[in-house]
Amino acid sequence: MKNDVNRQFRLKTRPTGRIEKSNFDFVEESIPEPGPGEALVRVLYLSLDPTNRIRMSDMDQYMPPVGIGEVMRGGGVGIVVKSNSARYKEGDRVSGLTGWQDFCIADEGLRAMSVLPKDLPVELPVMLGACGMTGLTAYFGLLELGRPKAGETVVVSAAAGAVGSIVGQIAKIKGCRAVGIAGGPDKCRHIVEDLGFDAAVDYKRADWREQLAAATPDGIDVNFENVGGEIMEAVMARMNLFSRMPLCGMISGYNTGEPMRGDFSPILMRRIELRGFIVIDFMEKFAEGAMQLAQWVVEGKLKHRETIVDGLENAPVAVNKLFDGGNIGKLVVKL
Amino acid sequence: MKNDVNRQFRLKTRPTGRIEKSNFDFVEESIPEPGPGEALVRVLYLSLDPTNRIRMSDMDQYMPPVGIGEVMRGGGVGIVVKSNSARYKEGDRVSGLTGWQDFCIADEGLRAMSVLPKDLPVELPVMLGACGMTGLTAYFGLLELGRPKAGETVVVSAAAGAVGSIVGQIAKIKGCRAVGIAGGPDKCRHIVEDLGFDAAVDYKRADWREQLAAATPDGIDVNFENVGGEIMEAVMARMNLFSRMPLCGMISGYNTGEPMRGDFSPILMRRIELRGFIVIDFMEKFAEGAMQLAQWVVEGKLKHRETIVDGLENAPVAVNKLFDGGNIGKLVVKL
Repeated sequence: MKNDVNRQFRLKTRPTGRIEKSNFDFVEESIPEPGPGEALVRVLYLSLDPTNRIRMSDMDQYMPPVGIGEVMRGGGVGIVVKSNSARYKEGDRVSGLTGWQDFCIADEGLRAMSVLPKDLPVELPVMLGACGMTGLTAYFGLLELGRPKAGETVVVSAAAGAVGSIVGQIAKIKGCRAVGIAGGPDKCRHIVEDLGFDAAVDYKRADWREQLAAATPDGIDVNFENVGGEIMEAVMARMNLFSRMPLCGMISGYNTGEPMRGDFSPILMRRIELRGFIVIDFMEKFAEGAMQLAQWVVEGKLKHRETIVDGLENAPVAVNKLFDGGNIGKLVVKL
Repeated sequence: MKNDVNRQFRLKTRPTGRIEKSNFDFVEESIPEPGPGEALVRVLYLSLDPTNRIRMSDMDQYMPPVGIGEVMRGGGVGIVVKSNSARYKEGDRVSGLTGWQDFCIADEGLRAMSVLPKDLPVELPVMLGACGMTGLTAYFGLLELGRPKAGETVVVSAAAGAVGSIVGQIAKIKGCRAVGIAGGPDKCRHIVEDLGFDAAVDYKRADWREQLAAATPDGIDVNFENVGGEIMEAVMARMNLFSRMPLCGMISGYNTGEPMRGDFSPILMRRIELRGFIVIDFMEKFAEGAMQLAQWVVEGKLKHRETIVDGLENAPVAVNKLFDGGNIGKLVVKL
C-alpha cells in the first residue's frame, strides 16, 4: 500500500495459457480527484476469480473484455477516503468493481458501489467470499437452477474452491447428499471433515471415476458445474432422469482457448435441464440471498475459509492459483 | 398385407451405420389369439421416426433397447379385429406401440393403446404426424421448453421433417419469426412457400453459415434442435442472452455411434437454457395438445404432408430416408 500514488495493473497483452506478470504494465499514476457526485475509495481487498482470466482474453464473454491499456477489471472492497456524494460518507466501507489498483472512483451511476452495513457480522474479506458475490453465485445457482430436494444427490466440482465449498454446504443445509470433486488429499479431507460434505472425489487419483461412482450410488440429481472437460463428462454420464445442471464455469478450458466441448447425448436421453448463469442474473434478489448467507455464517452452518495474498503487486501471479489447484476457499489479495 | 399370417421384423443384429434389411429377420408367425382383457389389432400404418434408429442400437437411451430377436419397436395405428376387452370394440381405430408387424395385441395394462374418436377430423396417417406424437413433440417442446414470445426468432433444424415442419408453423401462429434449416432447394421452397416460414437455410449449400446469419439478423431466441453436429454449433453461436434450446434430437449422430459433442461455452456465456426432452415427458397434457393441434389443422393454420411408403416389407429400407434427407413431412408405412 502506498499513500501518494495509485498503482494500477493495466493489461498489456492477452495471456496465452498461464497468466504472466508480463501481460500487464504495473504503473504508478497520481491519485484521482473525485468530481461532483463521486467518491475516492482506497481498495482494501481484491477478489480473485476465474472470471478474471476470461476478461483478459478476447473470447466470447459476459461483458466486453478488458481493453489493452485498461486497468484490469475485478471486484473488491474498500473504504471511502474522500467524498463529494451524499451516497458515500468518509469511512464507509464499499464493495464493487474496484479494478486492480490502490484507489478507485465510485460514482452514483455506472460506477456505483454498494455501501456495506456499519455492523458487519463478518470480517471484510468474507464480504468477497461466503457473504459476497461468491456466496451468492453458489446460493442462486444451486437453489434457483439446481432446485435440489431433500434426499437428492448434489455433485459440485472445484469443491474446495470459493463457490464449490459453499454449494456443498448449502446442499447439506437443504438435506441433500453433497459430493465434492477436488484435487488432492488436503482438499478432499477439508471438504468432508471441515465442511461436512458426505463424500469427496480426488480427481488427481487414477481411480477418480470409480470414486465418483462409489460416491453417487443413486446417480446425480444436481450437477453444479465449475470445471468442464472430462470431469464434467464423467459427472453427466451419471446424471439421473430430469436432473438439473447449473453451469457456473468451465475453468479447465479458460487457459487453452479451445472450444469447451462435451457430449450432449446425456442431456437428450436423460432430459437434463442445463442452464448457464452468472450471479448478476439474480441481481434483484441479492439482498435476500446475502441476508440468508450471513445468517448461516453467523449461526455456524456455513463455514468459510479465505486464502489471503499480501500485496497488490502479487495479484497477477496469485490468480494462477485458481487454475493450478493451489488454493482452498476464497482467494483474495490484501492491499 | 396378408390375412393369414403375422409378418414381423425381428432385430437380428444392431446396425453399424446405415440400417440394412439384413439387420432383421423378416418372419411369418401365426396370428396371435387375444386372451382375456386383450384385443387383436391389425396394423394399418406404421410411424417411422429417428428414434427407431436409437432403439436398434445399444446406446444410452430412453427405454431399454430392442433386444436381439425381439419384434422391432415402433408406433402405429390400427383397427381392432377381435376383442375380449370392454376397452376395445371391433372396428375401433387405435394408436400406440404396434411394433413392425401386421398384427399386435392390445391389452388394458402396459400394452394398452389409445382408442381414436369415431369422428376423426383428419385422415388416419395424420394421427401419426401433425395430430399425433410428432405434432405433440413439436407442440410441447416449442411451447413448454422454448417459451417463444411474439417477435422472437425461432430456428428449427430438420425443418422439412415431421417435427420441424410443425415447430415452424406453431412459431408463426405465436407471432415469431420462423427460420428453418433444411437440405436442398425443394425442402427450402416447401417450408417457406407452403408452410409460411420466414426464411430457409439450405445446409447443402456451401454458404449455409452466411444464410443463417442473414436469416437471423436479431440473433436466435429459441433453437429447437433436431440434428446436432456442426449445424447445432453454428446455431448456438448465434443464440441470444437468456435464449432457450429444447433438445429434441441429434439425428446427425445416430448412425455414427460417436459421442454427440458440441461446444458448451455459449451455454455459459449467453446463459442458454437447454433441456432434453421426449414427448412422453408431457403425457399428462396430451389431450390438451392434441385438441389444439387438430383445431389448427382443421382451421388450415397447420399444414401437414405425409410421405407414405407402401408395404411393411419396406420399413427397414424406408427408415433410412430420415437420415439421408430423402423425406419431406411425416414418413409412414402403409401396410
